[in-house]
Amino acid sequence: MEQNLVLGMDIGGTNSVFGLVDARGSVLSRGAVKTSQYPQVEDYVQAVCAGIRPMVEAAGGMGRIKGFGIGAPNGNFYTGRIELAPNLPWKGIIPLAEMFGRELGVPVALTNDANAAAIGEMTYGAARGMKDFVMITLGTGVGSGIVIGGQLVYGHDGFAGELGHITVQPGGRLCGCGRRGCLETYCSATGVARTAHELLEQTPEESALRRLSPEELTSKDVYDAAVGGDALALRIFEQTGNILGRALADCMAFCSPEAFVFFGGLAKAGELLLGPARKAMEENLFPVYRGKARFLLSAMPDADAAILGASALAWEL
Amino acid sequence: MEQNLVLGMDIGGTNSVFGLVDARGSVLSRGAVKTSQYPQVEDYVQAVCAGIRPMVEAAGGMGRIKGFGIGAPNGNFYTGRIELAPNLPWKGIIPLAEMFGRELGVPVALTNDANAAAIGEMTYGAARGMKDFVMITLGTGVGSGIVIGGQLVYGHDGFAGELGHITVQPGGRLCGCGRRGCLETYCSATGVARTAHELLEQTPEESALRRLSPEELTSKDVYDAAVGGDALALRIFEQTGNILGRALADCMAFCSPEAFVFFGGLAKAGELLLGPARKAMEENLFPVYRGKARFLLSAMPDADAAILGASALAWEL
Repeated sequence: MEQNLVLGMDIGGTNSVFGLVDARGSVLSRGAVKTSQYPQVEDYVQAVCAGIRPMVEAAGGMGRIKGFGIGAPNGNFYTGRIELAPNLPWKGIIPLAEMFGRELGVPVALTNDANAAAIGEMTYGAARGMKDFVMITLGTGVGSGIVIGGQLVYGHDGFAGELGHITVQPGGRLCGCGRRGCLETYCSATGVARTAHELLEQTPEESALRRLSPEELTSKDVYDAAVGGDALALRIFEQTGNILGRALADCMAFCSPEAFVFFGGLAKAGELLLGPARKAMEENLFPVYRGKARFLLSAMPDADAAILGASALAWEL
Repeated sequence: MEQNLVLGMDIGGTNSVFGLVDARGSVLSRGAVKTSQYPQVEDYVQAVCAGIRPMVEAAGGMGRIKGFGIGAPNGNFYTGRIELAPNLPWKGIIPLAEMFGRELGVPVALTNDANAAAIGEMTYGAARGMKDFVMITLGTGVGSGIVIGGQLVYGHDGFAGELGHITVQPGGRLCGCGRRGCLETYCSATGVARTAHELLEQTPEESALRRLSPEELTSKDVYDAAVGGDALALRIFEQTGNILGRALADCMAFCSPEAFVFFGGLAKAGELLLGPARKAMEENLFPVYRGKARFLLSAMPDADAAILGASALAWEL
């Protein structure tokens, strides 16, 4: 039987979503389980497989499945293990690819969500046909997936491509990783909220953001205010874009990609963020790189991006 | 006839050195021309070929030559051209690989000197058998060659791997590239001399370096003073290593290499520089990378490193 379908799953701290995908990137069926409800990983695997089996049967059986791709925090592509993920219920080192492989009888590959997103864009999205690009996911944190010569960069240990944790401000904001000044502390959705708090405290300037309770202020509020022309909110995006652009300039000096592809909640701010980022990047580029890299928004449908990204891994098995 | 020899040449602003190399990395014969004496690139090509032909004849003729590898400033691997090199006599875009290919009748490849050094280390030196490492050349400037999955990273335009021009200090020292705060302005031989000048001006502290004329002070003087226990000189290396280590931590977040291989005049400072660099790198690493990357010194014989590095390119033709 022709193996022309793949399975994909994105594991988040709260939910895991999975689906069956064809070669054109159409999601034929979907399912989900609550990750946090399964303190025992064995139970989790059973629950996911119980969701997957009927959708595979309906599509003609396991014989049609080329493989199963999983995007997971701290996922190691080389070992197929999740290693020391702080936001998942399972501690230590979890051989998840092996566990699913045994259960389902298909090849399983695993990597982190930003890497999966990069492979997704290359397979079905904005980076089709590109050999050298960098995926930047701007959500609660900042993730990245680096593609060089058509291959995802995993590094010697399987953990390469953590641009969210390059230092953009020595001694700067404390990051969840324990370091200070990480890109993620400024250029994520939470980073934007932190910048908003700082600016609101530092200036007496009038702003629509003052009408919101500081504890509940989100990057979405800053976006709405900026769209409404609020000067302070616009400045928050400008500062954020400026820091992002400088980091991307360093990234260019590294691998000189033809494009950066942006995905995630904060990327929806579009030109409000990417305009200042492009300007700062160009101003900080080593001359030979100027005017070369494109900025693209993800072309993956929002609802299915996570499943599609992970599923794309499976075509390479 | 078996093609078991390669030609290699390193083009510098002053001298070009070339040689004939066997598969074990032995340089069988050498030659040189003064780059700066040939304002016309056609004359330069003729002069180099006039030096190469007799050594090839003596080794059995062109039939034994697999190819010719050239390391040159602003050398573009994809096009075989030197593009806008500020320190060479030829302006604009020079199709040097094509010119030598026509003249000698062998395949010719060209890249910048740090990339050539990386391929040299992988072929004959400290990085044999490694798939993921980063070459750092610490000389008058700072160069880099990045190897991922056994392949040198050229980027989409052929110019990737300019870690000397990542920003380590926003608004910092003016760099020859026109930007400010480049790694190269701090962690090169000239950067060390600049740091020495700054510290000598800023403090009244006694130091052996005060006995030298400031205009003539070099990184070698700082090294000699540091070896002699001079506290100020030791601090210069500490500061330099600290900046280098932070940059390497960001580099780890990028491609997670198994080793950094150091080459160049300043790398000879050894632990004086690399000790503080390793410490600063580890302190600034995203947790998952800690304790993983090795620091290695180049294993290429000094006198022939440039020829060997360039020649190694030719084995891949």
